[in-house]
Amino acid sequence: MFENYYSEQIKSTPSSFIRSIFGLLKNPEIISFAGGMPNPISFPQEELKESMARITEKYQDKLYQYSTTLGIDSLRQYIAEQYATRYGMNVTEKNVVITTGSQQAVDILGKTFINKNDSVLIEKPTFLGFLQIFYYYGANFVPVTLKDYGLDIDELKASVKNHKPKLAYLIPNFQNPTGITYSKENRKVVFDVLKDEDTIIVQDDAYGQLYFDKKYKMPYIGETDINKNIYLGSFSKIVSPGLRLGYIVANEEIVKKIEVAKQMADAHSSVLNQYLILDYMQNNDTEAHIEKIRALYKNQAAAMIEAIKKNFGDKVSYTEPKGGMFTWVTLPKDKDALELFEKAVEKKVAFIPGKPFYTTEGINNTLRLNYSNANKENIELGIERLAEAYKEL
Amino acid sequence: MFENYYSEQIKSTPSSFIRSIFGLLKNPEIISFAGGMPNPISFPQEELKESMARITEKYQDKLYQYSTTLGIDSLRQYIAEQYATRYGMNVTEKNVVITTGSQQAVDILGKTFINKNDSVLIEKPTFLGFLQIFYYYGANFVPVTLKDYGLDIDELKASVKNHKPKLAYLIPNFQNPTGITYSKENRKVVFDVLKDEDTIIVQDDAYGQLYFDKKYKMPYIGETDINKNIYLGSFSKIVSPGLRLGYIVANEEIVKKIEVAKQMADAHSSVLNQYLILDYMQNNDTEAHIEKIRALYKNQAAAMIEAIKKNFGDKVSYTEPKGGMFTWVTLPKDKDALELFEKAVEKKVAFIPGKPFYTTEGINNTLRLNYSNANKENIELGIERLAEAYKEL
Repeated sequence: MFENYYSEQIKSTPSSFIRSIFGLLKNPEIISFAGGMPNPISFPQEELKESMARITEKYQDKLYQYSTTLGIDSLRQYIAEQYATRYGMNVTEKNVVITTGSQQAVDILGKTFINKNDSVLIEKPTFLGFLQIFYYYGANFVPVTLKDYGLDIDELKASVKNHKPKLAYLIPNFQNPTGITYSKENRKVVFDVLKDEDTIIVQDDAYGQLYFDKKYKMPYIGETDINKNIYLGSFSKIVSPGLRLGYIVANEEIVKKIEVAKQMADAHSSVLNQYLILDYMQNNDTEAHIEKIRALYKNQAAAMIEAIKKNFGDKVSYTEPKGGMFTWVTLPKDKDALELFEKAVEKKVAFIPGKPFYTTEGINNTLRLNYSNANKENIELGIERLAEAYKEL
Repeated sequence: MFENYYSEQIKSTPSSFIRSIFGLLKNPEIISFAGGMPNPISFPQEELKESMARITEKYQDKLYQYSTTLGIDSLRQYIAEQYATRYGMNVTEKNVVITTGSQQAVDILGKTFINKNDSVLIEKPTFLGFLQIFYYYGANFVPVTLKDYGLDIDELKASVKNHKPKLAYLIPNFQNPTGITYSKENRKVVFDVLKDEDTIIVQDDAYGQLYFDKKYKMPYIGETDINKNIYLGSFSKIVSPGLRLGYIVANEEIVKKIEVAKQMADAHSSVLNQYLILDYMQNNDTEAHIEKIRALYKNQAAAMIEAIKKNFGDKVSYTEPKGGMFTWVTLPKDKDALELFEKAVEKKVAFIPGKPFYTTEGINNTLRLNYSNANKENIELGIERLAEAYKEL
């Protein structure tokens, strides 16, 4: 009865596939590789409890009052220091914006930069949450094929030449959805192609710290060049997604514009959560904590790859993740992942078909598997079930 | 150096006046009536501490994991029950969306409903945070003059007839910025004018529970009619603004569209904060807590009105608030509130000139005074200083 009231964009925004199967996934008999949920091991519950006790003593009513739009100074400073230490970046708190999770960071960049029909270069396939919101803002997507080693350089060159994208949204580390990691060489060539163009590179690094081997702790594309880059980070995969805290690191001038967009979005992020995460990060051996997550995911990824090999042989191809939470399976061209999904649910295993991660039609034979939130037994059993479903295709 | 990159809307969004004077207000010598900050007395710190201890035991890793877009079921249910008990509304948790503060509720409504140039009826003057974001979404504002008793009915009729607004955004209780409360009669007539029109009424009720007398606990415009109304509420003024939690109560069909907008905005609101507020509300005498806030603000409002009478006599007019956090002063037509602001800051007192609360030019002699976060002594001294500044105009 309200159909005439809605905005054109919201009417044409597809409801997310993940959300539409949410009810289904509540069935405890279904083994789900569908979500993107971190393993609860990554939530340092005891330490967060200690931090809560500390900050309620230390900050009192400051935890509950309105605060500044860009985030509390001490957390912004902490993040700036991390970027300085970890990447040798010449940044201060003035380069940092605290966001209500990375999803909001993406919304805010849309608000700040996108006019209808502005070209935005993306990976093909890419993160659903980015597509949804940039589609809302009317972006003209320019997808560049993702290869095992990173972006397809010929396509990248042609896309940049033909579309002059305003932004390039890239996830170089353990990409969502594919699990692909850009090689060092690819990063260099990508930057060579983009560095003299009027394109700002947005690097979403939600998974960067979840490398399975130190050699996959790699420099950003364009390294420390903050005039060409906007860096997105998050506490979701190393402390907690439920606390909804992410951040944007950018040129100071851009931060000033982002401040207006952030003010409009939610005034500021939760003060309690900002102090909580900061206190936790400053008072614990976070590196040891993250190392535990890495080890667990590495094992679970190996179990999944092993199970795929065992159950599918060479009938499918797949990425071998170097970190992060996902692998990406490509079925033979004549098989449809959506049909597989239906059969799979009957066998009580779920995943996300690849389709919603593309902005173009034509690729129907890919799917995303998440291994972070399933144990080894379930991974083995789930992949067996998936192989049985596959046989019925 | 990035001027060509920004979206047209963000370039034309004025930086908020409040934000632009934020640095100034850090000066501890300045008595500020400028902000809209609740008094720290309204933060039940000890009880929230107890709730934290309880929820960390009870919910464990659920506090930190991803959760559902519309909010946790138990909090949605609690809010639905409140609306059923308090207003006799026939609603369930399916009518409720948890938002990251009321500012986000407003953003989400913009995303859900507004196409460029859609007409939106507003009070003249109205809440700055609403104007900023709806300006961003390209709304065509239709301002209707706010009188002491509510909306000017002749103007309302003419505006509705000429502009057929899609939404009417109204703050009937202790309005921000004016402190005005719609009379019962005015509410009825406003609804009579709107009920057969294609206009959805959005009632923002951030201050509704802060009445100074039970007789100002009034029914909504259109009372329980959820097909004509969208209700916005918030925990900011009765528990904590820093936790950033508000809510939307609406028709189920609308909630389904809002879900898409909320997903794009920040996936969901902080799970920890949702359980924290819920636990606090369910385990404490919240009515007694709110009664303390009412009594304090009532005293402070009285002190401010008294001081205005004493120092200004009949040189200015002002609203006598029946609740909430603000009073609104109208200077003689030939005086400029922005000039007064400059003189006032020299005398070490601050307020917000009325100009940013209007979408039209021409009214320069109004100003907003906040009394919730200043004690009686500061209120008296601040108004004295303001009167001294006024003499120099």
